[in-house]
Amino acid sequence: VVVGAGFGGMSVAQTLRKAPVDVLVLDRNNYNGFWPLLYQVATGIVETQEIAYPVRSLLRKQKNVDFRLANVRAVDFDAKRVMTDSEAIEYDYLVLAGGSATNYFGNDGLAAHTFGLKDVEEADRLRNHILSAVEAAARTDDWNERRSLLTFVIVGGGPTGVELAGQLSMLLHRTMPREFPNLDLGVARVILVNASAGVLESFPANLQAYARRRLDRLGVELRLDQSVTEVEHGVVRLGDGSTLEATTVVWAAGVRACDLAGTIGVSVGRAGRVEVTPTLTLPDRDDVYAIGDMAYLEGFKGGAYPMVAQVAMQQGRVAAKNIVAHLQGRRAKTFSYFDKGQMAVIGRRAAVMDAFGLRLRGVTAWLGWMGLHILYLHGFRNRLIVMLDWLLAYASRTRSAGIITRPEAQTHVERLQTSRQDRAA
Amino acid sequence: VVVGAGFGGMSVAQTLRKAPVDVLVLDRNNYNGFWPLLYQVATGIVETQEIAYPVRSLLRKQKNVDFRLANVRAVDFDAKRVMTDSEAIEYDYLVLAGGSATNYFGNDGLAAHTFGLKDVEEADRLRNHILSAVEAAARTDDWNERRSLLTFVIVGGGPTGVELAGQLSMLLHRTMPREFPNLDLGVARVILVNASAGVLESFPANLQAYARRRLDRLGVELRLDQSVTEVEHGVVRLGDGSTLEATTVVWAAGVRACDLAGTIGVSVGRAGRVEVTPTLTLPDRDDVYAIGDMAYLEGFKGGAYPMVAQVAMQQGRVAAKNIVAHLQGRRAKTFSYFDKGQMAVIGRRAAVMDAFGLRLRGVTAWLGWMGLHILYLHGFRNRLIVMLDWLLAYASRTRSAGIITRPEAQTHVERLQTSRQDRAA
Repeated sequence: VVVGAGFGGMSVAQTLRKAPVDVLVLDRNNYNGFWPLLYQVATGIVETQEIAYPVRSLLRKQKNVDFRLANVRAVDFDAKRVMTDSEAIEYDYLVLAGGSATNYFGNDGLAAHTFGLKDVEEADRLRNHILSAVEAAARTDDWNERRSLLTFVIVGGGPTGVELAGQLSMLLHRTMPREFPNLDLGVARVILVNASAGVLESFPANLQAYARRRLDRLGVELRLDQSVTEVEHGVVRLGDGSTLEATTVVWAAGVRACDLAGTIGVSVGRAGRVEVTPTLTLPDRDDVYAIGDMAYLEGFKGGAYPMVAQVAMQQGRVAAKNIVAHLQGRRAKTFSYFDKGQMAVIGRRAAVMDAFGLRLRGVTAWLGWMGLHILYLHGFRNRLIVMLDWLLAYASRTRSAGIITRPEAQTHVERLQTSRQDRAA
Repeated sequence: VVVGAGFGGMSVAQTLRKAPVDVLVLDRNNYNGFWPLLYQVATGIVETQEIAYPVRSLLRKQKNVDFRLANVRAVDFDAKRVMTDSEAIEYDYLVLAGGSATNYFGNDGLAAHTFGLKDVEEADRLRNHILSAVEAAARTDDWNERRSLLTFVIVGGGPTGVELAGQLSMLLHRTMPREFPNLDLGVARVILVNASAGVLESFPANLQAYARRRLDRLGVELRLDQSVTEVEHGVVRLGDGSTLEATTVVWAAGVRACDLAGTIGVSVGRAGRVEVTPTLTLPDRDDVYAIGDMAYLEGFKGGAYPMVAQVAMQQGRVAAKNIVAHLQGRRAKTFSYFDKGQMAVIGRRAAVMDAFGLRLRGVTAWLGWMGLHILYLHGFRNRLIVMLDWLLAYASRTRSAGIITRPEAQTHVERLQTSRQDRAA
């Protein structure tokens, strides 16, 4: 039984393709999402269906695997069963690959009043909210209200925050003015808040500096060495006591292991990740593996392996092979990581890449980023349409996903406006 | 001021392109939808964004027009103002083109327990519900429960009901078995209920007979001369007292004018449509026009003009020209309808067409249907992707929109199952 159909879980299932086992994949969503492009869903460049692929379609040609749409709530290790919302499922071997969730560090107010960007539903909700806020700005005569509707605060200076900030600024200042000729989008602000002194801090210093210059050129305001302490009713309170009025606040400041990691009664490391042995099993169970974002294993630059797709995929392969080895009485392999590097894109024709021994920036890195992301997408249709959408977005300033599909987004924006007015009165 | 950005409203705005007027288009959605393909959204063939186009993008090149996302609640004809949720907007001329809504004939229970198919949000909710029901069927061991989850009742034998029934049957019996190898989809039923003795009754008798044969071949069960009196907790009660257990019930049995038609204090005809003069104004107001689905005007085969896109578009052009004529002191033109005919598709390589003096069926009609629908779509991207999706759907049995994007759909299906179990116990 494999819990989770993300990068890690799918890697396990596919590595077991020819193994003498029956694989059952469980996930609370029926799709495998390509998270690196979520920020493009949020900004309307691509559609949700283009970056998510049904698990059943991915596994269609594999005979020894089945899928069940189910939310796993608990595990009974002694009885060798996982408990979903509706049933108990027995396993011989279990792989926990539940992934991660947004980390609000225990601040419930942040969770309630900000947007996350961890799955396609969150990205689509954010997209609907952004479009609704700009439409509301086009409707109002009140200057303060308009300014608050057009202020977008993004918390977190990692790749997610930087990529979203760059793209959102392009959307507001490059794409939308054509569609809102009577709205002064010059007052629109994108503010990127980060708790530390830089952005993209896992990158080399010269690429960090390049990213800052590009963000600056795109009109993104940086608030560094700054934390967000409270978000409520459209007001963001920063660590230094100052406030920002913003109808849109995106929380991209941290990830933690999924809830399941905390409910199964095993010891966890930083960010709530389940501690595993170098062969990726739980310390005292050789029939239970944990991999990817939800697993904690040290061995990377003096710390734990990062919560990225490459680690999950490589761990998935090792876990699958170790299950077969265990079945055949062979010795388990320990996990060793081949670091392919990292990349992030900052708007149009600009990206940073620190991979394969190369440190690139600018157009070359941007083209490399596009090529690799197309390669990692599932399916011919999705690749073709994403390429088409990129061409439209970059060459003709057209967004592909510009319609508001969730009417509740409009209601939400109106409620924020009302509570802002109440506060002012 | 034009209320509504559907086929009619857009036709008014675009006809006024070079007129010496300022046009303000109001709609509660920010897009113009291509409703004839909603059933393809519901069955996952195309994505929502492909059949809806942002109003602002459509009007981008037109200088004398602006758009506002607003829900019109009332009209003060004497003060010449429309009231939206948030403001009052003055007009010199007003065109009411608010379209239509699903007609439940006053039965609130039907509204609460069935799915409509009148806009992209409803279609997307239905798509999510269908996918969630089949996933739940794959999860359960209870034969009765599985049968209820795999029973789909569609009420209404017009083009919407017929097209949805045919496509849904193909989805269940042709596409999904590849993705659900361990689920016996042979037990899945699509049941089309219609109050009268046939289907597609606006078509000639031989095309009606052809449609019935095709539906039969696709495995769609027809329940004719039969009404639906109640739908609750997954049970459909028919006029003859018999019941069907079905987790999915789609109401495609009637349309009426939009709510606005009933709230502005003018006299209405059948289906709540606003009565207009042959020049498309309200009887006593030469500055207020009503067109399309929400307008009632007799003159078509002894009755009122039908609630179809062609009427709305042609009326939009006449209303726009009459406004210019009124401004210039010229006499208004009366509306005369050029009937281009009608068509409906029933599954793969099968359609009926009664247009341009031709009565076609089969592959020819199907190709004609595809060509015309591609032509009427907005934008190069949408045309290209819809063609690609059709190719995938018909040639390789692949759906493009197979992911469940609304988790609430799963909860809804589970709630129906629980209430079914409670009733059984």
